[in-house]
Amino acid sequence: MADISTDREQGSVFLPKFDAQGLLTAVAVDHESRAVLMVAFMDVEALEATRRTGFAHFHSRSRNRLWMKGETSGHVLAVREILVDCDQDALVLVCDPAGPACHTGAPSCFYRRLVGEDLVARS
Amino acid sequence: MADISTDREQGSVFLPKFDAQGLLTAVAVDHESRAVLMVAFMDVEALEATRRTGFAHFHSRSRNRLWMKGETSGHVLAVREILVDCDQDALVLVCDPAGPACHTGAPSCFYRRLVGEDLVARS
Repeated sequence: MADISTDREQGSVFLPKFDAQGLLTAVAVDHESRAVLMVAFMDVEALEATRRTGFAHFHSRSRNRLWMKGETSGHVLAVREILVDCDQDALVLVCDPAGPACHTGAPSCFYRRLVGEDLVARS
Repeated sequence: MADISTDREQGSVFLPKFDAQGLLTAVAVDHESRAVLMVAFMDVEALEATRRTGFAHFHSRSRNRLWMKGETSGHVLAVREILVDCDQDALVLVCDPAGPACHTGAPSCFYRRLVGEDLVARS
């Protein structure tokens, strides 16, 4: 019989793997540009809320609570597709963003790149 | 004076923020296609090794050690650029992969998508 690792890699059953803190990693990407918009964490509750509503929900580690991306700003992420990695401990959320994905107002949280020891704004 | 959160978001100084486990999240994307190849974690040592060598290194949580992606398979990830997010606890590694990024032989670890309750191979 196949063990759960094999099932996770080769199977067609969704068996999300949460870590010791009860979290998996979610990477939101833009459906059009494929740019990485943000990285956050999901617990069982956030994953369930995302799948149920179609809008990205995460678990805030600092506030220890469920949050919907855009719950304050209105800049929600409509999830078109969820991609699952080999060991099912990371998800890619393919999204249509309703506005800037970053709370700073930048389209993506990844608005800087590392050049030597410095961070430089991406053109 | 600005606090460290403001410095992290608005500054030009690289101040990577490791979590309670000493880790940050690294998302490897393909330079050409921008596809997400894999998601893994870096500690200080893995980040230093990546920056020093130009090849992606990670910290294995299951084996509790440094590893270079491709150290066994030869399928290394040459890092062309490192993008940094707003609070500096996640990095995007823009890579040229030397072969399939996934240990299963798939080009990306995200070779399935969630459809209802099932995982379906991506075309």
